[in-house]
Amino acid sequence: MIKVCLIGGGNVAFHLAYQFIKAEHVQLIQLYNRTLCKLNPFENDVSITDQLSELMEADLYIIASSDSAIREISNQLPFSNRLVVHTSGSQELSCLASHNRRGVFYPLQSLSKSKPIDFSAIPICIEAENEDDLCLLHAIASSLKSKVYNISSEQRKYLHVAAVFVNNFVNHLYYIGQHICKEKEIPFEILMPLIKETADKINYLSPELAQTGPALRNDMITIENHLKLISTQEKEIYQLLTSSITNVYKNK
Amino acid sequence: MIKVCLIGGGNVAFHLAYQFIKAEHVQLIQLYNRTLCKLNPFENDVSITDQLSELMEADLYIIASSDSAIREISNQLPFSNRLVVHTSGSQELSCLASHNRRGVFYPLQSLSKSKPIDFSAIPICIEAENEDDLCLLHAIASSLKSKVYNISSEQRKYLHVAAVFVNNFVNHLYYIGQHICKEKEIPFEILMPLIKETADKINYLSPELAQTGPALRNDMITIENHLKLISTQEKEIYQLLTSSITNVYKNK
Repeated sequence: MIKVCLIGGGNVAFHLAYQFIKAEHVQLIQLYNRTLCKLNPFENDVSITDQLSELMEADLYIIASSDSAIREISNQLPFSNRLVVHTSGSQELSCLASHNRRGVFYPLQSLSKSKPIDFSAIPICIEAENEDDLCLLHAIASSLKSKVYNISSEQRKYLHVAAVFVNNFVNHLYYIGQHICKEKEIPFEILMPLIKETADKINYLSPELAQTGPALRNDMITIENHLKLISTQEKEIYQLLTSSITNVYKNK
Repeated sequence: MIKVCLIGGGNVAFHLAYQFIKAEHVQLIQLYNRTLCKLNPFENDVSITDQLSELMEADLYIIASSDSAIREISNQLPFSNRLVVHTSGSQELSCLASHNRRGVFYPLQSLSKSKPIDFSAIPICIEAENEDDLCLLHAIASSLKSKVYNISSEQRKYLHVAAVFVNNFVNHLYYIGQHICKEKEIPFEILMPLIKETADKINYLSPELAQTGPALRNDMITIENHLKLISTQEKEIYQLLTSSITNVYKNK
């Protein structure tokens, strides 16, 4: 059994805790959080503590805290030469204190506490300073039935910015679509099948080949008509994305 | 049986033709296209023609041509006071010639010839000049098992621009995400579950509440770090969408 301590009381910590409790080959032995009562849901399953000095001996310590707390927590760990990882997409491995062996265990998904997550559908990006530690992280990710990828700190930075485009910014375009509908009392649900199909399509067609619409066709009449209908902010976004699409395809 | 003639040889015409051939209560009696050979796949199922003068008598004529051809084709129809509709998201009902009764039958989906489409998952937006014609269009859309919405020409213009945001522009953000990954040899498939989850999420959470990420948190450190990694064009898009997200949430 691989023994794991989890540090943190947020979404990532909670989802990982639930998964580890039911996983084979992995034993969650302890949960730490600064505010102990946050861990109450787990008190019957696993030891809980609000003292870093009380952390038990484990094969792996996972710091699933906010990005800004990783450095401080890792500095305060009262032991050395053990494997300590963080779960952040935007932080380098080197933000962890060097008196322990360091790694990253980054589940690439947008997690909210309220919704149960199927970890077998979540890719986990791992990184470590030596082969043995990488193997251990691989084994743990596999025990969650997740797909595992070796991703360096350098790659992870880029992956994180790419995720902002395909998740945060895409959601904002959904927001704009909904806003336009609302103004004209059009039920937004009409657009749901199109949204689903747009996301599904790139499973069998690259985004480059899946592109359609007035910008691709250079259909200036439709573009001009659209620009008359929308707000100043929406217009700026429409124009910039249209010109970006035009730039990609103009020489093809 | 409701008798239908279909005019056009593109994606929409083909998908509708396949659906009508197997639909109950609707009989596809004829297909028209300027280039007859395009209709060869249907020659055993239904009468085909390249002469508008040979169009048979029907309860409904559907012009599923390119947007720019709708006006001309409807002008040339050699009969009057019959129900004629187009299938365009961006054209008003009034672009149809007024010697026939006019309407719109707009399936809101991105259709490509190569992929079979489940019409029961496609909303159809209908419009007509009188109640009886609206009822007939409703019956036909229902025979395809589609969800039907009464949408005016005015609303449809807005729906179309909203669709550009949630489909064409979203796909372009997927393209940018893929491009960033490619540069660093990161498999784009890592982002697929996140893309799927982002699209699924708004089925139970409005896009406004589903928003996450550095722009929402006003996390300037992450934003500045991201901007260092990407190209000039990507940077412009990143900055504009970040400031648009900030604008939406700053007073909430």
